Amino acid sequence: MTGFFITKDTVVSDAALNAIAYLPTEHLSKTVDPAFFRTLKDKDFMRIATLLAQKSYDEGGCPIGGVVIDSKTRQIIGKGHNTLGQENDSTTHGETAAIRDAGRVARLKGKGPVDFRKTIMFTTLTPCVVCCAQINNRCHFEKVIIGDITNASSTEKILRAGGTQNIEVLQDSKAIALYKQYAKQRPDLHYIDWGGHKKLADVQKTRPVKK
Amino acid sequence: MTGFFITKDTVVSDAALNAIAYLPTEHLSKTVDPAFFRTLKDKDFMRIATLLAQKSYDEGGCPIGGVVIDSKTRQIIGKGHNTLGQENDSTTHGETAAIRDAGRVARLKGKGPVDFRKTIMFTTLTPCVVCCAQINNRCHFEKVIIGDITNASSTEKILRAGGTQNIEVLQDSKAIALYKQYAKQRPDLHYIDWGGHKKLADVQKTRPVKK
Repeated sequence: MTGFFITKDTVVSDAALNAIAYLPTEHLSKTVDPAFFRTLKDKDFMRIATLLAQKSYDEGGCPIGGVVIDSKTRQIIGKGHNTLGQENDSTTHGETAAIRDAGRVARLKGKGPVDFRKTIMFTTLTPCVVCCAQINNRCHFEKVIIGDITNASSTEKILRAGGTQNIEVLQDSKAIALYKQYAKQRPDLHYIDWGGHKKLADVQKTRPVKK
Repeated sequence: MTGFFITKDTVVSDAALNAIAYLPTEHLSKTVDPAFFRTLKDKDFMRIATLLAQKSYDEGGCPIGGVVIDSKTRQIIGKGHNTLGQENDSTTHGETAAIRDAGRVARLKGKGPVDFRKTIMFTTLTPCVVCCAQINNRCHFEKVIIGDITNASSTEKILRAGGTQNIEVLQDSKAIALYKQYAKQRPDLHYIDWGGHKKLADVQKTRPVKK
């Protein structure tokens, strides 16, 4: 064992959390002391999700990130961000990216499908109605923590109706400011992400949307 | 140009359609004469989706496949299959795999997000309520053709309510038989796929489910 890059005594800073955002999930156990994760508050995991959103934005993509942690050990089991801009992939949102990553990492460890019932989903933006709210309900997360209900209508009702009772809104000002900026800069991708080309065309009917 | 492996005169057989199922989508234009695709009926594209389901089953995965074609040119723009068994990925169903593939291929051609409004989605099994029906509605496919409403409750109502008016059920006996066999052999994955570990646990309460 080479030793941890981030130890239990490392100060919780954006720089440290950003390194965690960038490190592939399967390598976290080799580089970050599990004790460090145990010191993190919910707002710190939300910050990691926001830094993943920033990573996506820096790549020309939609700034929405997701992080899934084991609710008991507080270790990250999956994380990711929207990839519509990077990969034209309208099925990969912040939440689905983190869910898929968790499955991939479990598989690397020789495990089967992940049981998400004892995990917490942190998502920077309120889960979209058309897929993420539904998928979150199928996963039956112990808790869903949302970082931004300012830039999109909250889907709390849909989540609760689907059995996700434990929902917390932990507004992250950086996540909100970042998504607001993106929606203004790339309204085309913003509308495609939320409703496909039909949504974009519907909006175009009443006012031009720059690409 | 080396010449097409499958020409306009190639007999439409399971062997030819299986080769198409296995060829990466971005290589189809180099190996299959576009005229061949123009001769294919809807049932032939559904057979390709079923052969993708068979491919998934042969890999130890869930046998559900999806194919998206351009409704005018009848060329395949995306295809894929469920990967829960292969990758522990509970977000990749037949439809989402095909949608993601279409985006990937468009990107290889230097294009942006795919406009699915002039495309047809062929899916072997009725779109799941929790994500695929919703995602199909967001994509606004010109038409959704379903190959099996025997092994799962039809989501036609949800699709119609979401704006997908043009739905056809084209029951494919091979797709139906294959999924039925799989659900019997791997009830655990079947339940996880449709409702997560909670669904599996709920079923276990009343009767044992073998893994």
